[in-house]
Amino acid sequence: MKRTKIIALLNADAPTDAVLIMGWVRTRRDAKGFSFIELNDGSCLGNIQIIVNESLPDYEKIKKANTGAALSVTGELIASQGAGQTWEIRATEVKVISLAPDDYPLQKKRHSDEFLRTIAHLRPRTNKYGAMFRIRSELSYAVHKFFKDKGFYHIHSPIITGSDCEGAGEMFQLDFFGDKANLTVSGQLSAEMFALALGDVYTFGPTFRAENSNTARHAAEFWMIEPEMAFCDISGNMDIGEELVKYLIDYALTNCKQDIELFAKFVDKELMNRLEIIRTSSFERLPYKDAIPILLASGKKFDYPIAFGKDLQSEHERYLTEEHFKKPVILYNYPKTIKPFYMRLNDDNETVAAMDILVPGIGEIVGGSQREERLEVLQARMKQMGMAEESYWWYLDSRRFGTVPHSGFGMGFERVLMLITGASNIRDVIPFPRTPGHIEF
Amino acid sequence: MKRTKIIALLNADAPTDAVLIMGWVRTRRDAKGFSFIELNDGSCLGNIQIIVNESLPDYEKIKKANTGAALSVTGELIASQGAGQTWEIRATEVKVISLAPDDYPLQKKRHSDEFLRTIAHLRPRTNKYGAMFRIRSELSYAVHKFFKDKGFYHIHSPIITGSDCEGAGEMFQLDFFGDKANLTVSGQLSAEMFALALGDVYTFGPTFRAENSNTARHAAEFWMIEPEMAFCDISGNMDIGEELVKYLIDYALTNCKQDIELFAKFVDKELMNRLEIIRTSSFERLPYKDAIPILLASGKKFDYPIAFGKDLQSEHERYLTEEHFKKPVILYNYPKTIKPFYMRLNDDNETVAAMDILVPGIGEIVGGSQREERLEVLQARMKQMGMAEESYWWYLDSRRFGTVPHSGFGMGFERVLMLITGASNIRDVIPFPRTPGHIEF
Repeated sequence: MKRTKIIALLNADAPTDAVLIMGWVRTRRDAKGFSFIELNDGSCLGNIQIIVNESLPDYEKIKKANTGAALSVTGELIASQGAGQTWEIRATEVKVISLAPDDYPLQKKRHSDEFLRTIAHLRPRTNKYGAMFRIRSELSYAVHKFFKDKGFYHIHSPIITGSDCEGAGEMFQLDFFGDKANLTVSGQLSAEMFALALGDVYTFGPTFRAENSNTARHAAEFWMIEPEMAFCDISGNMDIGEELVKYLIDYALTNCKQDIELFAKFVDKELMNRLEIIRTSSFERLPYKDAIPILLASGKKFDYPIAFGKDLQSEHERYLTEEHFKKPVILYNYPKTIKPFYMRLNDDNETVAAMDILVPGIGEIVGGSQREERLEVLQARMKQMGMAEESYWWYLDSRRFGTVPHSGFGMGFERVLMLITGASNIRDVIPFPRTPGHIEF
Repeated sequence: MKRTKIIALLNADAPTDAVLIMGWVRTRRDAKGFSFIELNDGSCLGNIQIIVNESLPDYEKIKKANTGAALSVTGELIASQGAGQTWEIRATEVKVISLAPDDYPLQKKRHSDEFLRTIAHLRPRTNKYGAMFRIRSELSYAVHKFFKDKGFYHIHSPIITGSDCEGAGEMFQLDFFGDKANLTVSGQLSAEMFALALGDVYTFGPTFRAENSNTARHAAEFWMIEPEMAFCDISGNMDIGEELVKYLIDYALTNCKQDIELFAKFVDKELMNRLEIIRTSSFERLPYKDAIPILLASGKKFDYPIAFGKDLQSEHERYLTEEHFKKPVILYNYPKTIKPFYMRLNDDNETVAAMDILVPGIGEIVGGSQREERLEVLQARMKQMGMAEESYWWYLDSRRFGTVPHSGFGMGFERVLMLITGASNIRDVIPFPRTPGHIEF
């Protein structure tokens, strides 16, 4: 008989005479003449209840199957007599595939996130982390679907690189057959080359920062989504960014309902409300220069000073989106002095066509810009910033031959997951997180 | 007016009064009173023909728009009078966005693959590489769709790792905040941990080999697809592998028809025939031990000797699939001495439940196994191979608690692309390939 997954049984339309399922015991409760087992196979959050009659062969062995043990169960799918579930299985045969001894760390009780990080290889077996990594998978698919449906092409930009994306952050270095090389901090420059050939493209892959910081928001390795669009200005860039944020929230609410509800119930009571605000708001579009007076007039005591020409900190961003506008905000036209060389210089010669999307609960979730497509302006900027043109000959080539206005942004995938699940630590949305001192597994 | 992509125009049902398109000049031909421009925007292989009347403003400037120049064109979409195209545009306004000077390297002529690798930032602007990277994008999506439709979850396994997947190959090393770390050679061990929690999972990400080899089949950085299935034996593993190979070919033939035809016409005359054989064959399943007498009886002079216990080389694999069976072959049950520690020991105590899929034109395209799920057997194998158990405590944990039979394989994404396009060099299927001495771009 072919194995059926539990997700299919829980969504069944009708009883079935004989089904075969395999999975792991979540709980077992023995009553007079029966054993009741909650079995989970990872296909969804829900378990299926199995009723084992003491008359079955191996009943004594089955009673050793504690939390974590693996079973193969044949039986009849019937409407449940009990409360709390629609279907259950009356077992006709139960095979114990393996046991989980008493030192199995995931006994039925509440474990702290900190403890579960030390057993990252086992934590996806818990309800919370099973839900988390199913959501991560679904949203990863949603990213691809969003762009494919719009006619974007997916580019696998290189991880090992001889160049850098100036200003993005500290890089890990390695020896590449005698050459000095780095792990990429951004696929943007590669994506630009492809946007100027294929039109609309995106990268979605791992990126790295060698910053020795131990915060709840930083990891040394994380996944980034970077679209790049030819013939697109900063306004079109904002449109795509806003649409993508809303699309991913909608996708999760529709396709990961049960798993998201776990987070709304146990992790963040404000989650559904916050997602609803983001999903339904028109994002406020505000020039950086207009954000400064708002912050100065806030009456808030910020840790970092506010003035035109200074970069905004998380505390400022969160004030704007959470307290002042109470919805997502797109800040744009930042002072050129605080932004990288590739951003397009505005006519004021003071600001560049940068844009950041700030959302409640997270702060910056998207950072992007219209790119400087004018060769001479780009060269002048690089010179001012002391950058060596020779290292960027290929990047400059794209402005020599058929250059066009183009734009793009980066969206940290882990920030999206933190937004959509309410998880407060980036370590809890990555299968095996990499932070200083943590390379195990 | 909103810009329309050329792919939409070429598939139009009816003429349109006014359309706006943007793209790059592929060719321009001047006739008396007219200029004919072939414009491409990367959305597809095809160009749209634009008829520019000399009465239009800026006509002299338009006549400077050579191959590579960028234009914005407004006009009427009409049925073409000429041969070779269904639709063309009678321009009402042409704006020259930018020119491409005479030193633009991609003048209309045939360029060698070797030359184009030196301008990897420009080569996607050619017909061949535009087609290649559109196919790469479509097939990348197809991989995700295949697994999602089967209920697999996608896991982002770590790139920087403290462990290795013993026997997979040489690793790049880096300093991770004072710890020694490597770039991953396989996401398998991570994927196993998740399969034992979520059931069916897969990874699809960059992997690395620090082997200083300069062949047409090796790159230091490449993308690998690695499914891992709980409650699945070697036979189920073969089923999924065979199905995936066929699915990707079908997907490409259906969704990348025009781009594939370019390769069938200009790159590999045997391509369509080979793909048809693979797509429609039932893959031959042959134990390794039965392959040895076939090779010995072949009458071929191989460079490497053949004997039970020796690994097969590419020449042997290709003989089996291309000459002997003339269709894909799944070799299985290899001698344990030539395979890694994690493969399941067969009852003969001599072979392990490994399986490789060999296809004509490529050789090995899939390599996998049923994993050793029995703790004591796994520990004994590790001891025999001189491996330190302490480094794998977490991996062994998965065999201590609720261990179940499980299987998986690795499929090199670039090999799939070489199979489906007929490209003979791995450097030509990767946007910016990484081989010794090549980290530019």
